Amino acid sequence: MKVVNLAACFGRFSEHWSPKIVGELNGQHVKLAKLQGEFVWHQHEQEDELFLVVEGTLRIVLEDRELTLRPGEFTIIPRGVRHLPIADEEVQVILLEPTSTNSTGGVNDPRSTGGEWL
Amino acid sequence: MKVVNLAACFGRFSEHWSPKIVGELNGQHVKLAKLQGEFVWHQHEQEDELFLVVEGTLRIVLEDRELTLRPGEFTIIPRGVRHLPIADEEVQVILLEPTSTNSTGGVNDPRSTGGEWL
Repeated sequence: MKVVNLAACFGRFSEHWSPKIVGELNGQHVKLAKLQGEFVWHQHEQEDELFLVVEGTLRIVLEDRELTLRPGEFTIIPRGVRHLPIADEEVQVILLEPTSTNSTGGVNDPRSTGGEWL
Repeated sequence: MKVVNLAACFGRFSEHWSPKIVGELNGQHVKLAKLQGEFVWHQHEQEDELFLVVEGTLRIVLEDRELTLRPGEFTIIPRGVRHLPIADEEVQVILLEPTSTNSTGGVNDPRSTGGEWL
């Protein structure tokens, strides 16, 4: 058991769209990510995904509307729901999702990753 | 799908040791709680539990040492590990744990609860 300081962890990497695993519980990973620009339309077939914004403004485009998340705000994208994250400026975000989760849900993209431990 | 603002949610209740459910994903609940004073020694047999401090300083006493969590810091208490949360002054915390989780792990205490939706 250890205490994880989010700001210190965010200070240890700078890559965008490269989630870093910082914790694991009940088959889920806690990941930190820095996002900038537009990701790729995708969905996760078996995994619900939580986005909690720490810094910046994250837009999550859905098929019928768009969510805007500011610091201290979260949303949960249920499995099977197509979404497109967009960060007009850099965003720091906490992700929570099953350990099986691939960032693009399997869509072929050079940024596709399951994440790596920080 | 909705955007949940943590500060707004914390503003909607004042009770201590009464976790409010604000989200559900992959069999887990996201809960918000206000803590003050000393809780009760307990463990969760089947559930790992995440504590992320938003405001205040949370002490979690373990059998062999003590963790101190400040805002922006989290820890994960694995299933089966006895722990005693203490908040010398009011603490606001985000909890993440399976939907089956009882706050005292079944220990008989008037504060024992599975939480309720905010």
